[in-house]
Amino acid sequence: MSDERVLAIDVGGTKLAVGIVDPGGRVETYERTETPKVDAEGLWRTLESLLDKLPESDLIGVGVGCGGPMEWPSGEVSPLNIPGWRGFPLRERLRERYKGLPVRIHNDAVTVAVGEHWRGAGRGSRNVLGMVISTGVGGGLILGDRLIDGASGNAGHIGHIVVDPGGMPCKCGGRGCLEAIARGPALAAWAQAEGWRAEQMIATAKDLAADAARGHPIAVAAMRRAGRALGIAIASATHLLDLDVVAIGGGMSQAGPMLFTPLDETFRHHARMEFARHVRVVPAELGQTAGLVGAAAFIYGADRYWNAD
Amino acid sequence: MSDERVLAIDVGGTKLAVGIVDPGGRVETYERTETPKVDAEGLWRTLESLLDKLPESDLIGVGVGCGGPMEWPSGEVSPLNIPGWRGFPLRERLRERYKGLPVRIHNDAVTVAVGEHWRGAGRGSRNVLGMVISTGVGGGLILGDRLIDGASGNAGHIGHIVVDPGGMPCKCGGRGCLEAIARGPALAAWAQAEGWRAEQMIATAKDLAADAARGHPIAVAAMRRAGRALGIAIASATHLLDLDVVAIGGGMSQAGPMLFTPLDETFRHHARMEFARHVRVVPAELGQTAGLVGAAAFIYGADRYWNAD
Repeated sequence: MSDERVLAIDVGGTKLAVGIVDPGGRVETYERTETPKVDAEGLWRTLESLLDKLPESDLIGVGVGCGGPMEWPSGEVSPLNIPGWRGFPLRERLRERYKGLPVRIHNDAVTVAVGEHWRGAGRGSRNVLGMVISTGVGGGLILGDRLIDGASGNAGHIGHIVVDPGGMPCKCGGRGCLEAIARGPALAAWAQAEGWRAEQMIATAKDLAADAARGHPIAVAAMRRAGRALGIAIASATHLLDLDVVAIGGGMSQAGPMLFTPLDETFRHHARMEFARHVRVVPAELGQTAGLVGAAAFIYGADRYWNAD
Repeated sequence: MSDERVLAIDVGGTKLAVGIVDPGGRVETYERTETPKVDAEGLWRTLESLLDKLPESDLIGVGVGCGGPMEWPSGEVSPLNIPGWRGFPLRERLRERYKGLPVRIHNDAVTVAVGEHWRGAGRGSRNVLGMVISTGVGGGLILGDRLIDGASGNAGHIGHIVVDPGGMPCKCGGRGCLEAIARGPALAAWAQAEGWRAEQMIATAKDLAADAARGHPIAVAAMRRAGRALGIAIASATHLLDLDVVAIGGGMSQAGPMLFTPLDETFRHHARMEFARHVRVVPAELGQTAGLVGAAAFIYGADRYWNAD
């Protein structure tokens, strides 16, 4: 095994994580902290203090996954859930810190999809949709064995496929998007409106999944509702893209068969073209570290996963 | 200008067309005939008699667009609208006829999309969806300046994006697909059921577009119905793929503003992510010869448009 190492960074609204990843995709060293609610420079100092704990020998590059939106590939980030960073020049700051090393950054869901393709559930397949279902519904696409960036680095937004044209308004300004139905908070809110834990101020999608597993009828119906919306969107994506594998991760995917069974039924109901029948819809494999593994792939697998400067 | 020339073939249910295409994408020589309703060898002889009329000097390759489905890239074709060919080894036959030359074949809608990217409405853009709306609704994808084939050569099937989950059954076996609503014959049948030309045995989408242009209310409503379904599907594709250009061709696209105005309204209603706002949805430019131009691009533009053996 080579001595080369990549420094990987995962910036999210809940946590900041950094690690050293080896060429096989193993996370050797790992540090994390809650994302503090502070101003831009305070947040940068928090990230730097995490980075200070990592060894810097044998580094060949820095890979980053960060919550969107961002200017890509220039890497000025404005993560929806991190109000302190608006147009923050994350890529430039990291280039200053790690002089001479390539620094590469992409949206977090894209990074997770790359991780699953490189070392997870999509390994060895040429056409993969990686999805993250949690407080939002995001994704990334590897087609023809190469990451698809789109015109502005935004390819993969499966959360904004329209699954119910006359349906609920979406935060994006549209209507009936997958995300408006299937993101965790929307699903919990729907169940509360139907009478589930109606007395609580806040009930989470995690509570919902737990209650569904115990057979609570509204919770079960909510998971079915999410599964159906996901099945429609994945059928559309499969017909449009002729995929091999759809790998589904994120907190909501922990719900297991409560989610995957209705998802699969609806998917098979709509994905009827002959070529769509061989697609495998599977849980993601990498879990919490998918973002770090994917970020490392922007360096180790640059021929497939990095098409920018 | 180089002396190189490509022989291009366009096999459809209505017509067979062949031509010589120069490196600039101009069709120099063009021959066509109606597709005869004969057996496999009879059809092959018809194609050969067309090919016999073409000059063969300076040929560097043969490109083919053919109605699907087909085994790809091996090129055993079973065009839905040509019952005489089922598993017909078109690529192999052409290789025997044009010994030593590369012969490359793809689905007809993919070929048209490639033509529009190479020399038509998508010229100079890196992320293009090309669509053909006629008796079916097909398409092809160029992403990151490269043709997307999918796992089995079937990427681009935008006609089977789900736009109305509880809607009409589709020939594919699914429900609520774009094609089930917006393909010409379905649209004409819908209008007849609503009372338009109800006394006629058969009325065509061409009649429908003409009547819509004259202000017939049911015909206008039919075009709006198609436009809305198209707008939803294109919004979903744009969000998923972060496109630059959507180029729309095929007979139905001749309807002009009667179709494009409701299409654009619905598209803008649903495509609300900031990155989706710069997309241009435009009529295709190449018309009847798009298939020949695209077929030639499999040879001239092999680095971008041909990823197989």
